Amino acid sequence: MKNFIFQNPTKLVFGKGQIAKLAQLIPADARLMITFGGGSVRKNGVYDQVKKALEGRVYTEFWGIEPNPTVETLSKAITQGKAEGVNFILAVGGGSVLDGTKLIAAGILYEGDAWDIVKRSTAERSIPYASVMTLPATGSEMNSGAVISRAETHEKYAFYTRYPEFSVLDPETTFSLPPEQIAAGLADVYVHVMEQYLTTTGQSRVMDRWAEGLLLTVLEIAPLIRKNQHDYDVMADFMLSATLALNDFIRMGVTQDWATHMIGHELTALHGITHGASLAIVLPGTMSVLREQKHGKLLQYASRVFGLNTGGEDERIEEAIKRTEEFFRSLGLATRLSEAGIGEETIEEIVERFNARGARLGEAGNVTGDVVREILKSRK
Amino acid sequence: MKNFIFQNPTKLVFGKGQIAKLAQLIPADARLMITFGGGSVRKNGVYDQVKKALEGRVYTEFWGIEPNPTVETLSKAITQGKAEGVNFILAVGGGSVLDGTKLIAAGILYEGDAWDIVKRSTAERSIPYASVMTLPATGSEMNSGAVISRAETHEKYAFYTRYPEFSVLDPETTFSLPPEQIAAGLADVYVHVMEQYLTTTGQSRVMDRWAEGLLLTVLEIAPLIRKNQHDYDVMADFMLSATLALNDFIRMGVTQDWATHMIGHELTALHGITHGASLAIVLPGTMSVLREQKHGKLLQYASRVFGLNTGGEDERIEEAIKRTEEFFRSLGLATRLSEAGIGEETIEEIVERFNARGARLGEAGNVTGDVVREILKSRK
Repeated sequence: MKNFIFQNPTKLVFGKGQIAKLAQLIPADARLMITFGGGSVRKNGVYDQVKKALEGRVYTEFWGIEPNPTVETLSKAITQGKAEGVNFILAVGGGSVLDGTKLIAAGILYEGDAWDIVKRSTAERSIPYASVMTLPATGSEMNSGAVISRAETHEKYAFYTRYPEFSVLDPETTFSLPPEQIAAGLADVYVHVMEQYLTTTGQSRVMDRWAEGLLLTVLEIAPLIRKNQHDYDVMADFMLSATLALNDFIRMGVTQDWATHMIGHELTALHGITHGASLAIVLPGTMSVLREQKHGKLLQYASRVFGLNTGGEDERIEEAIKRTEEFFRSLGLATRLSEAGIGEETIEEIVERFNARGARLGEAGNVTGDVVREILKSRK
Repeated sequence: MKNFIFQNPTKLVFGKGQIAKLAQLIPADARLMITFGGGSVRKNGVYDQVKKALEGRVYTEFWGIEPNPTVETLSKAITQGKAEGVNFILAVGGGSVLDGTKLIAAGILYEGDAWDIVKRSTAERSIPYASVMTLPATGSEMNSGAVISRAETHEKYAFYTRYPEFSVLDPETTFSLPPEQIAAGLADVYVHVMEQYLTTTGQSRVMDRWAEGLLLTVLEIAPLIRKNQHDYDVMADFMLSATLALNDFIRMGVTQDWATHMIGHELTALHGITHGASLAIVLPGTMSVLREQKHGKLLQYASRVFGLNTGGEDERIEEAIKRTEEFFRSLGLATRLSEAGIGEETIEEIVERFNARGARLGEAGNVTGDVVREILKSRK
């Protein structure tokens, strides 16, 4: 096991009716801004619940944080927040609203272009913020990361900042999510776990078990959600799994990969493809191209997640990769670039971007532009 | 899934050589007291590491917190701490030193008998404290609970207080632990998980998987530790599992039992038996007597932890209980009251104590004195 430091101070407020607690959770003297996406929270009743919970409180609203939030949009919110002396932000929506809010919260204390913060990958300071999370996927509700896009240059990068003060998670808010968002969310959660799990064996037995426990949970709930998206307990497990997949709980003392995410971000930056959907295309390629390096863990994954214990090792690994892809397909997601309407020219464009940055991705730092090309070519 | 609120702010500083970071971790202006047990840290080099890390810093020491720490001893430390204006405490040792320190930290801000805090089960205020944890077992290094004894009346109760600021966990400090402490520690960790797991089915798939992951890890590492107590990776998994078993991570949205612990505390209070060892005696009885109520979860436990999937349901449950007892015996622990030199008169004494308190233990609140009698009689 590697040495590590772990600390995650975010308060989770989980369950039915918990949005009503907002007034207790937000400091009484906060100069509050509430941030939103495109307006789905107006339809599903969440906006009304928030308004009711904060009746009598003064706050400003900022609407219109888009999926894959752009620094261009967020800069407007930063300007508004600075002008109004905002010192606490509540994000209401999915991972994009919250990721965008993380940049707004940092940008309010920063003199200059907020894109600097993203490029530096760390915010030195940030006002406190919190969330009402309505879409299980990114884990942003209990971590310090955020992924921000720049429309002008088609760039998309992660940066790290303070943790949310609290996140309210009410599984009932997920009942009305569009099926394609559920599908992308499930894929996102699954791949978050895989990035922290599918590296080398023998680092930590308990971290392996917890990662496998999350994978098994996602595989079990996915068909149940398709059957009945109003099953509270199933949606609660979905929501909790999304949080636990990326809140540092399963990465203690182990190496991490994240090559699939870095490649997926490029697909999103260039083609606007939903984040979770991009991962469903890339992951089988990463598994396949790096199968020698990941041999032991792929065998463990085959055995513990899919019960594949007989036949030759290569055969079991091949089957595990196949089942992973089949899982994504069962969600209704494309798993090939061509299915997503992405042509071969995009592969070279992405390779060039990685080469220009001198990228060496993955747990072994050996995923260069050339390896990225191989991964993407295997996903044509 | 039940509604829940989760927040655990403790910083874990995990790995080889991490004790050297103490000077950075403890506020520079702290009026520091360091608390210790009986002196094993002088032999295993931990005391020297702490002294070296804090060279040039001023602090006072309090030695002699005993196993199952007593309010009588801790009151002396409180008096010393008040006299010296202590505002930060570092506990160096195992769960007893840290549990005792939790009461000292609360007692320093309390006017009156510290036993009041224990009887009320909640400390309203506490100075900050932290730990260098050298014995994986209680999980006290990352939770808000502590168990305190009163020698005068042979009482032993838990109380809740603030979380540790940080805990330094260096697996190398466990290399020299006496085998009987390792055994009791492993049993303690196992039963902590069982108290949060062996209730009813269908509450949370992911919490079940995580609890099972911890149980499987403990079952896997126990024989490896017996073979080689200097295997860093194995001891690291032991140490991390102990923390994760009782830091609120596996109790999100699920009911809990804790009857076995309450009964075990009485065995310790009356006979001084080591905490983990007391649990190894009681747990098979709780499982057996409450097998109808816990039927579904016992079957799940039999299947997922021991791979018991064939034969009648009662047969599988019987076998799972047997294997649980065998696991404790494989650690070298007694699993019968008679083996621990405890006679039948103790059973009635314990039943009377529970009756006097009107106790109704367990996840269903139905473990009365009579049920406790049944559990203990099954363990003669």
